[in-house]
Amino acid sequence: MVNDKEISAVLFDLDDTLFNSSLMSLRARRNSIRAMIEAGLEIEEEEGLQKLLAIVEKYGSNYGQHFNRLLDELGVKDQPKLIAAAIVAYHSTKQALLRPYPGVITTLLTLMKKVKIGIVSDGVKIKQWEKLTYLGLQHFFDVVIVNEKKNEWKPAKDGYEKALKQLRITEPERVIYVGNKIETDILGANNLGIISVLFDPQKKYSTIEKKDNRKPDFVVHHFKAILKLLEIKG
Amino acid sequence: MVNDKEISAVLFDLDDTLFNSSLMSLRARRNSIRAMIEAGLEIEEEEGLQKLLAIVEKYGSNYGQHFNRLLDELGVKDQPKLIAAAIVAYHSTKQALLRPYPGVITTLLTLMKKVKIGIVSDGVKIKQWEKLTYLGLQHFFDVVIVNEKKNEWKPAKDGYEKALKQLRITEPERVIYVGNKIETDILGANNLGIISVLFDPQKKYSTIEKKDNRKPDFVVHHFKAILKLLEIKG
Repeated sequence: MVNDKEISAVLFDLDDTLFNSSLMSLRARRNSIRAMIEAGLEIEEEEGLQKLLAIVEKYGSNYGQHFNRLLDELGVKDQPKLIAAAIVAYHSTKQALLRPYPGVITTLLTLMKKVKIGIVSDGVKIKQWEKLTYLGLQHFFDVVIVNEKKNEWKPAKDGYEKALKQLRITEPERVIYVGNKIETDILGANNLGIISVLFDPQKKYSTIEKKDNRKPDFVVHHFKAILKLLEIKG
Repeated sequence: MVNDKEISAVLFDLDDTLFNSSLMSLRARRNSIRAMIEAGLEIEEEEGLQKLLAIVEKYGSNYGQHFNRLLDELGVKDQPKLIAAAIVAYHSTKQALLRPYPGVITTLLTLMKKVKIGIVSDGVKIKQWEKLTYLGLQHFFDVVIVNEKKNEWKPAKDGYEKALKQLRITEPERVIYVGNKIETDILGANNLGIISVLFDPQKKYSTIEKKDNRKPDFVVHHFKAILKLLEIKG
């Protein structure tokens, strides 16, 4: 029971909600720069990292040629050795760090015995499923929605509505959505009357005044606290 | 000294010469089928594997959409979960099995103190460098040539000649080429007067009569035997 309603489903964001995606990406990118330097690229680590992050920002994180663009910018031609070094370092780091946040697995295993659980995420379907697979969570969810089209990305209602439809749930007020971003996760859930939970492990949002439809119904700093919200024993 | 000549360089093929590429690919593809079955695909493992191998044969091993084509053929639509399961299983298996053949590292470390060493391989540059990187061999070689254009693939002379040119070697009779395939590696080396060594760990070729320019100058069954050829103590 939350807000005097029996809960039917708990839906989750993926990146930075079920695992620390930002830290993983940053470390993987830093290690890819280190590997290129070790393989012969002449650049300071910090300068290389900043240039790479600017390219990721410019072309988007799902663009497949970040390292090629970086070497282009640096005027380095035809260096498959450097690109291979970067790719191997990037993927090795990512795979090593693709682990769920503490409490995620036990919380999901407890939740799934009481309610439906699902994912509503933005990105490339196969890439999001790869992450779920590395996380060991690929068989956990009753529904997984990945919005591929940019105009359907959160806070758009498309993903939430698809999830509810697939779960045959007609009352959004019996659904909880857990995410880490105010402007997408929380706003989108609030717009539809879904109960919004901000997952804020670093307490980034604790001092920000939230206005209009951007105020989460609840804030949790530990993943397991989601169980307490639903009055379930963890 | 080989054939009364002082040797200047030893060049190597990559796949199935420095590591067991065929076994790795077959196991990786079998594990990808198993992972798709485990994720819900309804097919017999052996049937799935044979269909996948036929697709690899048809589209080539460097084509990026083998699993998509397999699911298309089976009439399975929009299954990112299955594709992700296959990709993760494929890459995890490959990385676990990307290890040099026994004796490769010590042989190369011994050789590089006496002669130049290099690679002449066919394929995609970045992919070949990724393999060298996973093998831990990316810094070993004085020259690495990857023929990307099909008309330059062995037995064409292009790759061998590029390697000799980069090493500033003008006498091919002072160069050894080690490879596992008669029709490409050995024929190409023989055509240029390079000393050809067939690496045949499974003794596949031992009973075949070799004719014309397809007869290797030497055959070795263990990688370390290359040192004996050069009268170097391993």
